Amino acid sequence: MTEHPQRPPFAGWLSTTNDITRTFLAAGRVPGLINMAGGLPEPATYPVTEIADFAAAAVRLHTRDVLGYGPVEGLPELRDALAKRLSSPDLTLTRANVLVTSAGLQGLDLIGKVLLEPGQLIACQFPTYLGALDAWRPRCPTYRNFVVDDPAFDAVTALDRAQFAYAVPNFSNPTGRLVGVATRQALVDAAHRTGTWLVEDDPYGTLHYDGEPLPRMIDLSARARPGEPYTGPVVYMGTLSKEIAPGLRVGWVVAAPEFIEALAMAKLGADMCTSGLTQHVALAAITSGLLEKIRPTIVDTYRQRRDALCAAMREHLSEWFEWEVPVGGMFVWAVGRDPSLNTDVLLQHAMAAGVGVSPSSVFDATGMYRRAVRINFTLNDAGRLAEGVRRLARAYRAMQGGHR
Amino acid sequence: MTEHPQRPPFAGWLSTTNDITRTFLAAGRVPGLINMAGGLPEPATYPVTEIADFAAAAVRLHTRDVLGYGPVEGLPELRDALAKRLSSPDLTLTRANVLVTSAGLQGLDLIGKVLLEPGQLIACQFPTYLGALDAWRPRCPTYRNFVVDDPAFDAVTALDRAQFAYAVPNFSNPTGRLVGVATRQALVDAAHRTGTWLVEDDPYGTLHYDGEPLPRMIDLSARARPGEPYTGPVVYMGTLSKEIAPGLRVGWVVAAPEFIEALAMAKLGADMCTSGLTQHVALAAITSGLLEKIRPTIVDTYRQRRDALCAAMREHLSEWFEWEVPVGGMFVWAVGRDPSLNTDVLLQHAMAAGVGVSPSSVFDATGMYRRAVRINFTLNDAGRLAEGVRRLARAYRAMQGGHR
Repeated sequence: MTEHPQRPPFAGWLSTTNDITRTFLAAGRVPGLINMAGGLPEPATYPVTEIADFAAAAVRLHTRDVLGYGPVEGLPELRDALAKRLSSPDLTLTRANVLVTSAGLQGLDLIGKVLLEPGQLIACQFPTYLGALDAWRPRCPTYRNFVVDDPAFDAVTALDRAQFAYAVPNFSNPTGRLVGVATRQALVDAAHRTGTWLVEDDPYGTLHYDGEPLPRMIDLSARARPGEPYTGPVVYMGTLSKEIAPGLRVGWVVAAPEFIEALAMAKLGADMCTSGLTQHVALAAITSGLLEKIRPTIVDTYRQRRDALCAAMREHLSEWFEWEVPVGGMFVWAVGRDPSLNTDVLLQHAMAAGVGVSPSSVFDATGMYRRAVRINFTLNDAGRLAEGVRRLARAYRAMQGGHR
Repeated sequence: MTEHPQRPPFAGWLSTTNDITRTFLAAGRVPGLINMAGGLPEPATYPVTEIADFAAAAVRLHTRDVLGYGPVEGLPELRDALAKRLSSPDLTLTRANVLVTSAGLQGLDLIGKVLLEPGQLIACQFPTYLGALDAWRPRCPTYRNFVVDDPAFDAVTALDRAQFAYAVPNFSNPTGRLVGVATRQALVDAAHRTGTWLVEDDPYGTLHYDGEPLPRMIDLSARARPGEPYTGPVVYMGTLSKEIAPGLRVGWVVAAPEFIEALAMAKLGADMCTSGLTQHVALAAITSGLLEKIRPTIVDTYRQRRDALCAAMREHLSEWFEWEVPVGGMFVWAVGRDPSLNTDVLLQHAMAAGVGVSPSSVFDATGMYRRAVRINFTLNDAGRLAEGVRRLARAYRAMQGGHR
């Protein structure tokens, strides 16, 4: 019995991947590194006692739901609770509008599976959440980017002939930008006119630090048929990862029932159903009011950290970067003043200096945009954020020294 | 703002799906129906108190692991525990050989993603687990079936030029068949000779009722390089779904490190990581010895139920079906004596008579094989199994009446 050296090749999309996200996830275990790369919550905000109690009670009181197989679409009680919670004066949702997912990322994977044949077109807000790019890679799509601040931005042109459009209107990942109402309305109108599905990814909507929340695109879309259960083109996604804890891996997709049914067929072949244990903890967190109870502390903590990060950046990074102070979310997007800045190179110096940030290349389907970095402010306290910024400034100087 | 009637079409694979599995999962909620369709455990075997305690302790003692993001490949401690547990005198495993998955089905999805371009070939043991067919549907593969009992079966011919081969040697789903050592060896030798990956799916290996367990294909493969960490062509899959409870959604893939790395890239875009809560419960279940503690009761219960089902079948179904008594697993595979039997039609009569079974069409990539049914014996007690069989006999008679 001899070993044949040649195995069948891996699928082509694997050669297009980056492993930056794996580096992020592993960075939490690198001793001494200040991790400002990932989108990680502050663990001190986790409601540990409540979740421990919810978990034990779920196993004891809902044994068959928790330990058996559940419906592909999610626990009916959780779908109902989400339909109620996500409805608004403009938007009427029923259980048939809701699919429970194994966190937000699975929703993106399932959307890719039901909408994309190889080579088909996605219209994307640019720069683009790298998890979405990762989720769609196995479907081998093509991309058309749109920049909502571009004076030439035209929503119908942006969406035309795309299988779907993808946007993160609340504190976009990576830019932290809040997309204004007029642009939201233009995207919704374009989706209604062109028929294109419009994916509204909203993991950060509750992390709002200044001003009032804006209507969601699905709210604007629902105004076309007031009072009726939603059947429009917006596909709205959410998650408990930023609101309570990522480790539960519970998220949701809200859409027209025909779209939810297609996603359920894809979920059947992806993981059959989400854990009943994590779903019951999510249900208890929603129906007990725990989310509302912990939100003020989370928002206050993150607002202070955003301010601390921006103060340190003004002191140490203004020479090389410009940025806008985000009104919500988890990130500051810093664009290099030098158009030839390569933040893939900066990252190597940063890691050597003991700080992790996310280079812009990973938020570009082509990998070519290298002038910016995404800096997280939710995981570290003010002192560590300031130290991280000082390390990043040292890394920039080291990079310049290396280039001279 | 008017609604455009035409949306972009769904991906083509969706038109090839069946929704029988969703019917199974929902069947648990149909009042009065005796569900012998799914592969469901007896809920009375769930170790409720232990799991509740493990879950609460995990949240309290391992808060960051449980509630934060974890490594894509799984918790290091769980990967180590699985490597240790699944090693054997023939097989040496390290952490690098192990990927934790969101239950067995996700492993199949990830394998499809890393190995299949549209139209590429899978060699499958026939008939084939419908969950595998569902998982691979979005990759649009082609199939070559092999029947291990066929006198003309030749493993090299079966595997030649396939991206991978798929088999369930222990109590195959759906047939319950135990694949003999000679055939296992032939498949392994063929994988070594042709280079083809060989997927060994083993959810039922611990549900062994008579005789001694046989060596796994990955054990046979490892004998080629004794003592070295495994680098061969077998991709071995397992799950806690049948050993403790499906609702945890924790499974694993064991393979060469290069294959695990490719799967991890696919998992990154599928769900980022499996819940730390369910992983820690799994870890406690393995390291505490709970699995070994509950196994005898599970095995005794299922052996008695298998015997009860087969006794009832002999009394009520011998006229129309033949079958072999399985030595393990969850299913009896009953093949119609009438070659023109259509069990898709029989299922309609069965559901009307208050019993669910699985028609053979769902275990055939072409959907054309309609002569058999898969009958589960693990979920229901002896009395309900007997009543289910009587209802199935009534359904058969009703179908014959309808045809006259």
